[in-house]
Amino acid sequence: MAEFALIDRLRARTRTRADVVLGIGDDAALLAPPPGEQLAVTADTLNAGVHFPPETLPADIGWKALAVNLSDLAAMGAQPRWCTLSLSLPHDDAAWLESFADGFFALADAQGIALIGGDTTRGPLSLSVTAIGSVPAGAALRRDGARVGDDLWVTGTPGEAAAALSLWQAGAIEVTHACADPARETLRQRLLRPAPRVDAGLRLRGLAHACVDVSDGLLADLGHLCARSGVGAELQLEALPIPLTLRGFAPMQARSWQFAGGDDYELCFAAAAADRESVGQALAFAGIEGAVVGRVIAGDLLQVLDAAGQPWLPPRMGYQHFA
Amino acid sequence: MAEFALIDRLRARTRTRADVVLGIGDDAALLAPPPGEQLAVTADTLNAGVHFPPETLPADIGWKALAVNLSDLAAMGAQPRWCTLSLSLPHDDAAWLESFADGFFALADAQGIALIGGDTTRGPLSLSVTAIGSVPAGAALRRDGARVGDDLWVTGTPGEAAAALSLWQAGAIEVTHACADPARETLRQRLLRPAPRVDAGLRLRGLAHACVDVSDGLLADLGHLCARSGVGAELQLEALPIPLTLRGFAPMQARSWQFAGGDDYELCFAAAAADRESVGQALAFAGIEGAVVGRVIAGDLLQVLDAAGQPWLPPRMGYQHFA
Repeated sequence: MAEFALIDRLRARTRTRADVVLGIGDDAALLAPPPGEQLAVTADTLNAGVHFPPETLPADIGWKALAVNLSDLAAMGAQPRWCTLSLSLPHDDAAWLESFADGFFALADAQGIALIGGDTTRGPLSLSVTAIGSVPAGAALRRDGARVGDDLWVTGTPGEAAAALSLWQAGAIEVTHACADPARETLRQRLLRPAPRVDAGLRLRGLAHACVDVSDGLLADLGHLCARSGVGAELQLEALPIPLTLRGFAPMQARSWQFAGGDDYELCFAAAAADRESVGQALAFAGIEGAVVGRVIAGDLLQVLDAAGQPWLPPRMGYQHFA
Repeated sequence: MAEFALIDRLRARTRTRADVVLGIGDDAALLAPPPGEQLAVTADTLNAGVHFPPETLPADIGWKALAVNLSDLAAMGAQPRWCTLSLSLPHDDAAWLESFADGFFALADAQGIALIGGDTTRGPLSLSVTAIGSVPAGAALRRDGARVGDDLWVTGTPGEAAAALSLWQAGAIEVTHACADPARETLRQRLLRPAPRVDAGLRLRGLAHACVDVSDGLLADLGHLCARSGVGAELQLEALPIPLTLRGFAPMQARSWQFAGGDDYELCFAAAAADRESVGQALAFAGIEGAVVGRVIAGDLLQVLDAAGQPWLPPRMGYQHFA
C-alpha cells in the first residue's frame, strides 16, 4: 500500500494570509502570531457513519468538518486564522477531493482561515481538523465566567438540525438531494451546512461573561457552562420562539429538538441583564437573532419551566448520533 | 452509538506549561505564544494496519504518534510547545488508553510538550496529532535554503528502522516482545520508539541552511530538500558508516536500508563546509553522532557514488509501509 499526498492538491485551493510565513510543503508551516494576542486551539473529528450519513456529498462533508471547529473558535470569541486537516480516504479519488475542497474552502474563504498543513492517509473516511484562532489576552469567552443574575442567551433557531436528522431517519428527506418544500430544505441545510457564529462571537467580547457552542444540545452544553462556572440555570420554555420551520410539528416535539437536539452550532452565553440592549445590537450587527431564554441562578440546578411555572423535561437529553 | 470522551482521561496525565492559559475542558484551549517568535505547526496521522502493525502495543503507538510530529518540529529547529490529539478507537477501552498514555506522555514529558485539546471518536484505530512549536522569527530550518557547495549531513544511524521492519516481516522479531539478541532489540526499539532529534534541531539554528527529517528514506527526503532549494546532491556511499547493528547483514542490504529505508526520523541537513567543526560540536552537545555524506551541487541530479566513483542505486527508493 503506497502513500498518497492529496494535501498537495488542496494546497492550490487555499487562500493565503499575510501571517502565513510558510505554508504547506515543508516539514511544518511557519506562522506569525499577532503580538499581544492569545491563541485559541481546538480539534474535532468527523467519521463517516458516526457523525454524518455515509452517502453525504463530499462538499457538505468538507463544509461541516471545518464548521464544527470554527464553531468552537466562535464560542471563544476568537478570530480564525489557520487550520490543519488530516484526511483519511478509502480510495485515491481526485473527483471526491475536488468536491470536498469546494465545501471546505467555501467556508474557509468566507471566514478567512488558511489551510496550512495536514496529512492524507488511506483508510475509512475520517476528517480531523485542528483550527487555530487568536483573541486579545484576557478577552476570550470562556465557559467559567457566568455570574448569578446573568441573562442566558441563545442565538438563532436551535432544534432545526435535530428536526432534519429526524426527517432523514424517517426517510422524509435525503442528504443528497434538495427538498421541494422550502421549510424542509431550510432544515436540511441547517444539518448539512451549519453556519458557525464567528462574527457573533467576536462581537460578544466584552459583553458575554461565559459562552459555549451548542453542538450536543442546548441543555447539555449549557450544563457544561454551568458546571465550569459553578452556577445553575433557570430557563423559560416559552422564551425560545418556535421558528416557522418547526411549526408543522407537534409543539412538544419541536420543544424537544430546541432544548435537547444537537448539531446546530448556535452560541449559548451569559451576559449581564444591564447589557441586554448592547447584546441585542451586537447580534444584529452579526446578522443573527438572539433570545434571552432564562437566567443564571445560584446552586447547581438546571431547569426549564413551562408557561405554568412547572418544571419541564425534554423526552431525551443530549446529542444523538445520526445512527 | 454514543460519544465517549476519553480525552478527559488524558487531561489528567498531561503536564502543564506556563504558556497554557486554559487547557482541555473549554471550547478551545488558550495559549500564550512567546513574543517575537513564529509558530511551527505540523499534523501527521497514523492508521493501524497502514503505519504500524495492528498488534503493536498501545504504549508504543502512543510514543510514535507523537514522535513523528515532534520530528517535523525538530526538522524546523522549533521548540515543541503544544499538541492536540484526535483518537479514533474501536472500543471504549480504559486499559488500552492508560497504556497508550504511558507511551505518549513519556515522550511528551521528555520533550516538554503539553496536550491541550483533541477529540475521541469510535472507529478504526487511528491517531492524528497536530503539534505546535515556536522558533525565533527567521531562524527556522526550512527545506529551501541549501547552497551549492554545502556539506550534506545525516544524524544517527538511518536504516535501522527499515532493518527492523524487514526482520518483522520475515518473522524474526515481534513488535510485542523484546528480543534476546541485543542488536536486534536495538533495531526493534528504533522502529517502535523513534527518538525525534528535537535538541539537535534547536542547536542547528544558525548553522544548517536547510533541513528535513528522514521519514520516507534518506534519498527520498533529501530529494524534497533539493527540489525546494533548486539544487542537486552528490553523496558518497562509504561516507555513511554501517552501524554495528547492521553489520550482520549483506552490505548491499544494509546500504539499501540506510539510503532508502524509512521511519528513522533522523535529520538530513545542509551546512557550510566552513562550519563542519561547529556542526559536529552542536550534534555532540545534542548527544548524537552525525556524518557528512556528500555535498550540494548545482543542477537537479541526486546521486550516490560508490568507492570506485560509480553511480549507485538502491534496489528500491522511498518508504514502504509495513504491509
